[in-house]
Amino acid sequence: MSCIFCAIVAGEGPAEIVDSDEHTVAFMDINPATPGHALVIPRNHSRDLLEIGDDDLAHTIAAARRLARRMGEALEPDGFNVLNSCGTAAWQSVFHFHLHVVPRWETDPLELPWVPSPGDPEEIAATASKIREAEPKAKPTRADVEAPDSGEG
Amino acid sequence: MSCIFCAIVAGEGPAEIVDSDEHTVAFMDINPATPGHALVIPRNHSRDLLEIGDDDLAHTIAAARRLARRMGEALEPDGFNVLNSCGTAAWQSVFHFHLHVVPRWETDPLELPWVPSPGDPEEIAATASKIREAEPKAKPTRADVEAPDSGEG
Repeated sequence: MSCIFCAIVAGEGPAEIVDSDEHTVAFMDINPATPGHALVIPRNHSRDLLEIGDDDLAHTIAAARRLARRMGEALEPDGFNVLNSCGTAAWQSVFHFHLHVVPRWETDPLELPWVPSPGDPEEIAATASKIREAEPKAKPTRADVEAPDSGEG
Repeated sequence: MSCIFCAIVAGEGPAEIVDSDEHTVAFMDINPATPGHALVIPRNHSRDLLEIGDDDLAHTIAAARRLARRMGEALEPDGFNVLNSCGTAAWQSVFHFHLHVVPRWETDPLELPWVPSPGDPEEIAATASKIREAEPKAKPTRADVEAPDSGEG
């Protein structure tokens, strides 16, 4: 099994699993940003945000919210970040869709990845026009490719 | 209307809207991390990840993925980040649930908010135990509170 997250789903890879359901598994990140940092993945393999099926996407964000609530009880953080990285340029390093759930504290050292400052309104308007006019082309999702047979990863 | 994002939904606030559907609106961030940075919000008001209803959460992540595909066509980025900030400690500054969709390029200046390094396995295991044992207590969501009447924000 070449995907290390599929191995975790199959019970063949080491992981501190903290939550799971029919569609998803949540486990601790071994390189934690803060104490409690965990990942939520769909059991079905998909590479990234562009490939995951609609149902798996909905199940995975629902599981991320449940995990945040669980962390809220267990760790009493001051907040949470949920982050998806799609593509190497966006820091994705394991190519099985995952959501980072990072509990946050006022005192933790994390910094926003950008410095918020006003953009040029004309540039923003020009970029908005391009986005509005584009067709949101979908790659075939795993669900499209594999239905109606199985969603095995 | 005290929520600036509800004002955008109502057409009463200025915004470069780039996509919308029955449940969501997407518009440009005025402090863009990269060219194209936009936000997706549910039309119904909810404060944050802990409060949003299940259906609005699913609709909003689906709209974020559609927006990523639209940006993919329009801007040809190398990747995407999708980020939710829940709470001031997690950089939330507008308290109407929103997902940042940030197109990424290999050459952009964004940096991961943490430096990945291996955590202590015993500490990770101890934190995992606490999370596993916690009940994921839900606050009442807007949908719980307002059903079966309306979802007006």
